[in-house]
Amino acid sequence: MMSKNLCLKDIIGRKEKFIIGLNSGTSANGIDACLAKISGSGYSSKVEFVAGATYPISREFQTLILKCAEPSFNDASAWLALDIILAEHFAKAAGRIIKKAGLNPEQISLIGSHGQTIRHMPQTKYGTITYQLADPARIAVRTGIITVGDFRVADTAAGGQGAPLTPIVNAILFGKKDRSIGVLNIGGIANITSIKSNRKGHEIFGCDTGPGNMIIDWLTKKLFQAPFDKGGKLASQGKACRAIIDNIIKQKYFAIKGVKSTGREQYGDEFCASFLKSCKKRNLSKYDIMATATQLTAIALSKCCTINGLKFDELLLTGGGAKNLFLKRAIKDELPNSQIDLVNARGYHSDYLEAISFAILANEAICSNRYDLTTITGSAKAVVLGKICQP
Amino acid sequence: MMSKNLCLKDIIGRKEKFIIGLNSGTSANGIDACLAKISGSGYSSKVEFVAGATYPISREFQTLILKCAEPSFNDASAWLALDIILAEHFAKAAGRIIKKAGLNPEQISLIGSHGQTIRHMPQTKYGTITYQLADPARIAVRTGIITVGDFRVADTAAGGQGAPLTPIVNAILFGKKDRSIGVLNIGGIANITSIKSNRKGHEIFGCDTGPGNMIIDWLTKKLFQAPFDKGGKLASQGKACRAIIDNIIKQKYFAIKGVKSTGREQYGDEFCASFLKSCKKRNLSKYDIMATATQLTAIALSKCCTINGLKFDELLLTGGGAKNLFLKRAIKDELPNSQIDLVNARGYHSDYLEAISFAILANEAICSNRYDLTTITGSAKAVVLGKICQP
Repeated sequence: MMSKNLCLKDIIGRKEKFIIGLNSGTSANGIDACLAKISGSGYSSKVEFVAGATYPISREFQTLILKCAEPSFNDASAWLALDIILAEHFAKAAGRIIKKAGLNPEQISLIGSHGQTIRHMPQTKYGTITYQLADPARIAVRTGIITVGDFRVADTAAGGQGAPLTPIVNAILFGKKDRSIGVLNIGGIANITSIKSNRKGHEIFGCDTGPGNMIIDWLTKKLFQAPFDKGGKLASQGKACRAIIDNIIKQKYFAIKGVKSTGREQYGDEFCASFLKSCKKRNLSKYDIMATATQLTAIALSKCCTINGLKFDELLLTGGGAKNLFLKRAIKDELPNSQIDLVNARGYHSDYLEAISFAILANEAICSNRYDLTTITGSAKAVVLGKICQP
Repeated sequence: MMSKNLCLKDIIGRKEKFIIGLNSGTSANGIDACLAKISGSGYSSKVEFVAGATYPISREFQTLILKCAEPSFNDASAWLALDIILAEHFAKAAGRIIKKAGLNPEQISLIGSHGQTIRHMPQTKYGTITYQLADPARIAVRTGIITVGDFRVADTAAGGQGAPLTPIVNAILFGKKDRSIGVLNIGGIANITSIKSNRKGHEIFGCDTGPGNMIIDWLTKKLFQAPFDKGGKLASQGKACRAIIDNIIKQKYFAIKGVKSTGREQYGDEFCASFLKSCKKRNLSKYDIMATATQLTAIALSKCCTINGLKFDELLLTGGGAKNLFLKRAIKDELPNSQIDLVNARGYHSDYLEAISFAILANEAICSNRYDLTTITGSAKAVVLGKICQP
């Protein structure tokens, strides 16, 4: 009746663990899976990338997920069903990445799964409400591997916004003694993590800096009928108009010190159309417009650093925008005293950095490491993130 | 930034643990809390009852919970809010039972929380869907105590119905070497756990036996305007009509061998009204009717034992019906070879047996003990029950 094959206690005691990280982003177009070899924990973790892949989600299923994630969607039964279907997909993704790495499930110590965010409402009357689907208990039973999931709830219970959690991982992966490190993640929105070492370990600060690729992508579609400015080639043929940038940077948002987050709403159609109009008023060429939008991202970062007193010996770039060479150069111009590199140069493929984050956080949960996210999510006390589910 | 006060590993290693169990039943009229001292785990657990209490839920809040639990209710946002409010109530109940026991939170190793069932749908096209509110991660953060919750999901992922889980606990609490034990829980519906020791530990079987107090309570209200037959006094003044009972026991349900469950629907208004009609046709007195309904519960148990080949050296009674002396005697008549006792005689107050169950299951989860519930919930493989959440 009772058996005891795999013990949580034994897994905790393992010096070296193969851990899988699973994640599906807000666009829900695929499940990112990665497999890492992790030894130690906390700031003395050693994390070795073993394998990564993105397993596409069918267009039909993606449509269903996106529908369920709409703010106006409120069908509880549909969520309960989706929770189960998504967990089965996540479990399959775990199985596939194990195979890709040439390993057996028995060799895997843990899975860390972010799940699929279906609702994220900061600052309601109940605090932040955040809800991820793909039940980790189901992933554990299906794979036979201890699975840690639901990473955001504990932070919201402690008064935080449950996001972002990547700054912790950036500190674990990239933090150095005697050197201050910045990690700039350039997605639609750009966010920065600053990691300064101190006697206790690391002092971490993180916030959104403003637009990342959102305006650039919008303009590339509008002016060049292409999805994005590959390598920054379009921008590099123009010259940025500083007056337009300065006008934007004067806005209140950029003067806010400390924790802040920007939504997609802020730099959507309306903002981009008005930006384009200002450029045309000044008779900028299509290329000048691209250069201006790209330099805005760099100057927004620089403004954020000035206001918050951030200085980096090294600045690591990740996210889609990291591949934009014009942007990279513009950032170098703004922060001439920082050594600028891609995270790829540190051995981590930027496409799988989020998935690897949850492998790392699973390890942290098992080792009962508490993080104080006051300066990142606004939480009131240090908590352990994640629920541990055994098969 | 990072701290490490309380380690999961240390808690697992503790020989003796104070553990809190929390539960709120389908009637949602209060949170049952109990505190137990548990040493060891599995079938060699030693469980000592320390304190128990039921903390009432306000009528207003109860109404909200019951509304949210209606099968037709489908408002996802309301569930997300209720999840948070309930967790705060559960956390408070934990705080109060610690105080009542004269202990400090630092002395408590674990909380096991069942939460509030808000949806239970066996055998949908996705398997059993079961959903409990009062997020254990929130309880953990609020109390500062590691909390295990969401006990039913893993079993449903393994193909089971996620319920009942109490047979495992009955085996741990009452199982004996060389003696076969039965535990009869007489609520509205009655269910039996049979525990036979074998070389591997215990062989457990559990199922509903049929009506418990449902018909008796209905008739007491109808014929005597009282909520229930206290001590079985009404029934003891009458004489049961065997012909009526035999007619009911002939029904298909009582002939089903193996795992089966009965719903409240089956012995509701319709059944009770028809039962009363049959009694009146035979000119039974009010007291004879009570005796007949009460003996039906005993004979339904006996029929279940015959069909499933169950024999008990000891039969332990729990639930509201255990206090009905006429029923106890009727059971003794049906099972003359069994020694019949109340669970209270074994040191466990029957009012807190469910709450204590989740304290025990929390300990089992931490110790990674897997249970094969094939003969109870219909699951396909042994799993560890519960998600572990650290503060």
